[in-house]
Amino acid sequence: MTAGEGDRVHVQCEESEFEGIVMPSADDSLVLKLESGYNVGFDPGDVEVETLEEDVGGEGEPPVVEREQDSDLPDVSLISTGGTIASTVDYRTGAVTAQFTADDVLQAVPELGEQANYRGRVVTNILSENMTPGHWQEIARAVYEEIEEGADGVVVMHGTDTMAYTASGLAFMLDTPVPVVFVGSQRSADRPSSDNVVNAVCAVEAAKSDVAEVMICMHRSRNDDECSLHRATRARKNHTSRRDAFETVGAEPLGRVDYESREVSVKGSHVERGEQELSVDDDLIPAVQHVKFTPGKDVDIVDSSAEGLVLEGTGLGHVNSDWIETVAEFEGPVVMTSQCLEGRVCDRVYDVGRDLLEAGVVEAEDTLPETAYVKLMWALANCDDPEAAMGRDVAGEITESSRPWT
Amino acid sequence: MTAGEGDRVHVQCEESEFEGIVMPSADDSLVLKLESGYNVGFDPGDVEVETLEEDVGGEGEPPVVEREQDSDLPDVSLISTGGTIASTVDYRTGAVTAQFTADDVLQAVPELGEQANYRGRVVTNILSENMTPGHWQEIARAVYEEIEEGADGVVVMHGTDTMAYTASGLAFMLDTPVPVVFVGSQRSADRPSSDNVVNAVCAVEAAKSDVAEVMICMHRSRNDDECSLHRATRARKNHTSRRDAFETVGAEPLGRVDYESREVSVKGSHVERGEQELSVDDDLIPAVQHVKFTPGKDVDIVDSSAEGLVLEGTGLGHVNSDWIETVAEFEGPVVMTSQCLEGRVCDRVYDVGRDLLEAGVVEAEDTLPETAYVKLMWALANCDDPEAAMGRDVAGEITESSRPWT
Repeated sequence: MTAGEGDRVHVQCEESEFEGIVMPSADDSLVLKLESGYNVGFDPGDVEVETLEEDVGGEGEPPVVEREQDSDLPDVSLISTGGTIASTVDYRTGAVTAQFTADDVLQAVPELGEQANYRGRVVTNILSENMTPGHWQEIARAVYEEIEEGADGVVVMHGTDTMAYTASGLAFMLDTPVPVVFVGSQRSADRPSSDNVVNAVCAVEAAKSDVAEVMICMHRSRNDDECSLHRATRARKNHTSRRDAFETVGAEPLGRVDYESREVSVKGSHVERGEQELSVDDDLIPAVQHVKFTPGKDVDIVDSSAEGLVLEGTGLGHVNSDWIETVAEFEGPVVMTSQCLEGRVCDRVYDVGRDLLEAGVVEAEDTLPETAYVKLMWALANCDDPEAAMGRDVAGEITESSRPWT
Repeated sequence: MTAGEGDRVHVQCEESEFEGIVMPSADDSLVLKLESGYNVGFDPGDVEVETLEEDVGGEGEPPVVEREQDSDLPDVSLISTGGTIASTVDYRTGAVTAQFTADDVLQAVPELGEQANYRGRVVTNILSENMTPGHWQEIARAVYEEIEEGADGVVVMHGTDTMAYTASGLAFMLDTPVPVVFVGSQRSADRPSSDNVVNAVCAVEAAKSDVAEVMICMHRSRNDDECSLHRATRARKNHTSRRDAFETVGAEPLGRVDYESREVSVKGSHVERGEQELSVDDDLIPAVQHVKFTPGKDVDIVDSSAEGLVLEGTGLGHVNSDWIETVAEFEGPVVMTSQCLEGRVCDRVYDVGRDLLEAGVVEAEDTLPETAYVKLMWALANCDDPEAAMGRDVAGEITESSRPWT
């Protein structure tokens, strides 16, 4: 007999056994809500299922997490913007929903309760592919307000697809005296292999740490044992589906958080808690065009009405020679990055590069193309000399120069 | 006293010493032409230089490499298209020049002479950022002719910037019974750390091997000890300047070549020498647009007059919901890839993805965005059902499916 949604069942799975209520599932997995409040998922082919009681799912009230403000614990703001991590499974209906409050998060991940006092805030509720520069501004203002009102750290729950873009936006817009930690989930809470608990627990620890930067906290490996802390401006989602999809490109991650011990280890230099005064420069000029050069691409793609242009060139920062005239005529800053992603652009080596420099192209050093796109929107609105700003480090996006040849 | 170009000098460098003629250099390096025919470069600050004889550079004739056809050796065609590897330093003038014949290559890398009999062919002489689909066709036809005329393997010397695009183009256009090996150089022959000798020697060995595929042969690590063989359609230049810039994305390289022992080791399945009949389908429809989606990018960038569209979406293959109507209205195939580069697109998981599938988007599985761009030009011209072709493996661009969640 197959167990239905809402049934209380016993599951035998190799050497472990579980009891819980069958939850709705987005695929063929068998998902159980356990007494502890956690969900666990199985491949139905791998387990033996025995129904103990039918259709009890709707009857019980969700376990209420008893929480009082504990003055010994730091205050962490949980900002929700949508995405998989905010798709908490509802206790009563089992439905995956993205509307949530801090209480919802605590019910989904009860162990968070021991880590901090929380305040929840919903800024928006969208999948991250629908984020726009306007959303980045809303999130930056919300983070600013939370810190102004006393938060010791902020966790921003965000879809993973464009998380690095949004986090970079905040890294440029905000000076923060406390950690601002973006966290997401590659697998929703109703999936056997969900990463939302580990990521959320580690993100809260990062928010309590001494690293007062905008960071991304996600699985470090395929294991469930620790998360990496990535500097926002050098982070990239480099895998479509793996839980350790995020990487710091061209550098070591800022640090890591051990899930079991809750220990935050940081390597190398970073901005310390309290080092910077809180401020926000949230103007953006979104009329920046990003173009990845590909062989045969027609230069007509360049939109001369844009106020800035970020080129994702080949190799050390090249485009077809045919493009140089258009680049020279472009009225705003033209910024060169590389589709290689790793390494520094250097247009002094080859003829095409030298011609590009003469045409006024600004080398973004080893800034990632996606980060340069976000930065130029910010630099156009906030810097007296946006071109100069694109060539110097503002928020960790340019690493210390090393000669590209050595 | 500073040594000038053409002077014969003695150089003391830590524990080594060298004698040779000072060559022109593209930067501040001191470059010597040694008796052996090799160049060696130094940082002038690291060495003591003593001039032995002034201005002798122009007097001597270049050492002639004695070569006769050896019927025991395989016949390898060397096709030059330009780029750093073809920038052989001229023996007489020391100038870096990209015009070369097989003899020039053999004079620059004398040890190649023992590996094969050669025929040289210059198809074009451009930096690879200036390559267009028209050049890919010329190169494909030249390779076809060389194999038809009896070459046991073909080495294509090509700039590294767009090498993976061109090599992918050939992988789709050609069925080959012998190896076709693209090789380049990240540092020109006049640089201390040039990789051109090791890469060229290894490429010739690969061309003699049993792997009858289109491959890229470049440094495997920062050492000078071996090269990797990358399947063209899964290769990517992932670093602007490092000699081991090329990587096979999402898979292990096809194989490796040991420089010292000349041994070619191949891992996993590949097309064997002689397995395929020689043929070329070199029609292309270059009117394919490639668009990398970035947050805030206006969908008006899509050119409705293009015959095909490759989207480089976020995550599992997403764009802003605002784009869906335009995607649905686009007349030709719309192919989804991911800017994550690693992992498979899968649009069945989230709403935006499902809407994209309904709008007619074709999932390119784990095809790299750059490869999908090249493939669609080829599929539009050569396949009865280009959309179906984009979802199935043609030349190693799609790896065996694994469930993205496990």
